[in-house]
Formats: sequence, C-alpha cells, structure tokens
Amino acid sequence: MKREKILVVKIGGNIIDDENALRQFLKSFAKIDGKKILIHGGGKLATKLADQLGIQQQMVNGRRITDIETLKIVTMTYAGWINKSIVALLQAEQCDSIGVCGVDGALIPATKRVVHDIDYGYVGDINFENIQADKLLQLLEIFGTVVIAPITSNQVGQLLNTNADTIATQIACAMQNYYDVSLYFCFEKKGILSNPNDDSSVISSLDKNYFDDIKKSGNAKDGILPKLENAFLAVEKNVSSVKVIHAEDLIEDISNNIKGTLIHA
Amino acid sequence: MKREKILVVKIGGNIIDDENALRQFLKSFAKIDGKKILIHGGGKLATKLADQLGIQQQMVNGRRITDIETLKIVTMTYAGWINKSIVALLQAEQCDSIGVCGVDGALIPATKRVVHDIDYGYVGDINFENIQADKLLQLLEIFGTVVIAPITSNQVGQLLNTNADTIATQIACAMQNYYDVSLYFCFEKKGILSNPNDDSSVISSLDKNYFDDIKKSGNAKDGILPKLENAFLAVEKNVSSVKVIHAEDLIEDISNNIKGTLIHA
Repeated sequence: MKREKILVVKIGGNIIDDENALRQFLKSFAKIDGKKILIHGGGKLATKLADQLGIQQQMVNGRRITDIETLKIVTMTYAGWINKSIVALLQAEQCDSIGVCGVDGALIPATKRVVHDIDYGYVGDINFENIQADKLLQLLEIFGTVVIAPITSNQVGQLLNTNADTIATQIACAMQNYYDVSLYFCFEKKGILSNPNDDSSVISSLDKNYFDDIKKSGNAKDGILPKLENAFLAVEKNVSSVKVIHAEDLIEDISNNIKGTLIHA
Repeated sequence: MKREKILVVKIGGNIIDDENALRQFLKSFAKIDGKKILIHGGGKLATKLADQLGIQQQMVNGRRITDIETLKIVTMTYAGWINKSIVALLQAEQCDSIGVCGVDGALIPATKRVVHDIDYGYVGDINFENIQADKLLQLLEIFGTVVIAPITSNQVGQLLNTNADTIATQIACAMQNYYDVSLYFCFEKKGILSNPNDDSSVISSLDKNYFDDIKKSGNAKDGILPKLENAFLAVEKNVSSVKVIHAEDLIEDISNNIKGTLIHA
C-alpha cells in the first residue's frame, strides 16, 4: 500500500535572522501541498537579547551552556517571538498552522542531559520512541502544518533547551512509522561541500563511507558534523528521504529532486 | 438535554508574578476534572524586561501603548516563557495540556485597533463570533486543557497584543454555544468589594444596577471597571456562570459555589 507523504523541514539561524529571507521562504513553504512539520532554530536573536541584558554566554569546547537565564531567553525567543511570527506569516499566506514546542501535550518528552565532564545546564536529550506521535498526527489532521520550537521539558516540569536538528531528526523518525517522510535540513549552503571554501562543490549524494572520509579529513565547517550525524541517524531509522539543502532550493527539489545533498546508507 | 460543562479561567498578573502562588494554583487547577481553558496575562515580567532593555513604556490616560519593541517583549514573555512554563508545570501534575495563543490555527482572529484620538499601537480587538470554536473544541478533545496567551494576529500576519480579560470573555461566549461555560476571573482579592479599602467587604452577588452604582460612585480601583464590563458582556451573551474570585478560592467555589462575586443580569 502506498503511504501518504509528509514533509519535515528544519530551518536554521541564517534564514531566521533575515526577515526578508524568512518571509520569502514561508511564502513558498505555504504553497507546498500536504501535511508538513517545520522545526525552527533561533538564530542570533537569543544571543542578541542575552547581550542586551548583559547575560554572558558561557561556551565550553565551542558549545553553549544553558544556564537558567539563557533558558529563559531561548524559551522567550524560540517558543515566543519566532514561533508565533512564523505562524502569523503562514496564516497570512493561507497556510493554516499551529505553533507548539516539545512541552505542549508533552509531545517531545526530554531528560536533562546527564553531567559527565561538562555540565551543559538546562539541555534536554530526546528519543523518537518517546515522541507522542498520536497527538502530533491529530494536530496535523486539524491544522495541516505544525511549527515546532526547540524547547522541551522533563517529567517534573523543567523546561529544557534542545537542539533543533535533533528535534527534526527524531520527529522524522517518529513520523516514519505512519508516513513516508521527506526530511530536509535547510541551511545557507547549496548542500554539503567537498571543499568547504568552494560553494559550488556540492556533493549530490553522500553515503556513510564518504561521511567517514569527511570526518577524517578534519576540514568540515563547524556544525556540519553534528548535522550529518543527525542525518545519518534518520537514514538508519529508515526515513524515506534525507537531504541537506539551501532553503531557497527546497521548493524546486520537492518537484524535481535534483538539488542539495542526498544522504543515504 | 444536559450539556457538558467547561471551565474558562483567567489568571492575572499577581499570581503569575509569584512563582510559589502560581505553582500552588496550577497544582489545584490540574486536579479539576473535565475540559478547561486557562487564559493568562503577563504580570510584571514584560515591564521588567522592558526596563532591563531600556525600552520606555508609553502610557496614555493610564493605558499602555504597544509599540513594536513592546510587542516583541509581550510576545516573548506571554506566548514564550509564561505559556510554556505553565504547560510544563501542568504536565508535571499529570494534567495534559497544550499552550497556544490566538495566532495558532488563527483561533482568535483580530483587527488592529482603529486610531481615533489615541493610537494604542499593535493592539488587537476581537469578537467571539470570529473565534474558530471548532478547532478549539478539537484541541480540548485531544488535550483536555488549553492554555492561551493573549497574543493575536490580523489577516496579514501582524502580531497584536490583546487584553487577557477580553480573550477570556470572548472565548467563554464562543464556547457557550457548545458547553455550559463557567467563567472565572481570578485575581488577588476575594471578589468585588463594596468598600475598595476593606478586603472583607465582598459583594456576593452583583447585578447590572449595582454595577451602575459602582461606576457612578467613582471609587472603584483601577482595572476593576473594564474587568466588570467584560464580565457583564459574558452574562449578556448567556454564559452559564460568571464569577470574580481570588485564585486561591477557585477550587472550593467549583464544589460549593459560595466564594467570590457572582455576576448576573
């Protein structure tokens, strides 16, 4: 039996930070038929707000520590301003949608990250097996589009900051039990580059061996490796299609499948 | 035919500002059986954040003007931090719930307030006849409890700040078509007082004539008159029960109906 398709799209900071780019993206996204889930990060807005409030961002090994003040800031910006701005813009484009975060309906139960050598603070780890897929399916039935901010909570009511790529991946894995999922990581490059300094060197098809070579080469740009780890996890869990792509190319790729980097086993 | 009951509760600033009071309130609220809608204001958090950011709050005739920076702040605090904190705490009390604002699913369509002598800025006016009751009913079926932040938007994607008492009232009016609605305005007094300086002078039953007397007397405290205007609008639209009550007394009143001030025709 042919299964219904669903689109799971992650948009990153660069598009969120640029009001015109975001508006353009949402205009196209609104036109895509069928059920869809949009997971957004937070861009520089949270960092900017922290700066304005004089809250120092602690970084350890290049990773941000979420203390209580930072948690408040990311919850306000991600689940508040960005999430509701996106939904309002989609509604204006006649794309019905609802904005939630992992806390709502306990859709994405999380556990506070266990402290080994580094205490990341109020950071939530999640697993697709715990996602309340039934409720998400019902929201998709009613609204068509669900916009998800990367805030979660644990069982005792503690809000937690969770990586948006991780949420997109785990949501895709959970939805694959019910739909054929196309998972897109949209970012500011045309795809994964064989030469990080050459924007035209897009790898059209990337398998696990190739990925291992990239890791060994040591010249991948910041943030690409964790994104690819997520992408390969989705592949491993049988998500129908996984691509890394420029946000501007999403619509074209949905119709012709020739853009970006296809991630496969 | 006896209709199902639903509770529509507005909680105000004083309880939001006090972490312990909020936690206590939510603990009791979580225990109430049946479908319920909780509308929250924002308390002093938005004002505090505006102060920290050096954003001057403009007041005209004692009413706040929502400029674009203030809009961002109220959206972040109301729809972000407060809404998600409430939902996380309810979930921790085994009360399933979803947090939304009027923007989500275009649940509460608004129009930007028309400028007559005063430009209130990004403020949204609403009417219960436009509320998408069918979607709200579906959310109540799935989650049982819906928590609503007082942010709305118009048809072209502009976010708008909307009074939480007004939202509670209009939601109650919209729900009355489907349920017997009990509408509670919870605040920091035991009810409407006959003597504003005597907390024990609670008026147990207040009709329109009595309200007219209070208005004429000119000694009602700030904010009481608009709250009562809202309460009487709900009465006029046949909402089954309308009360103004202390947050701490809500649970007791639900079982014995002897607390607070009953508003009636």
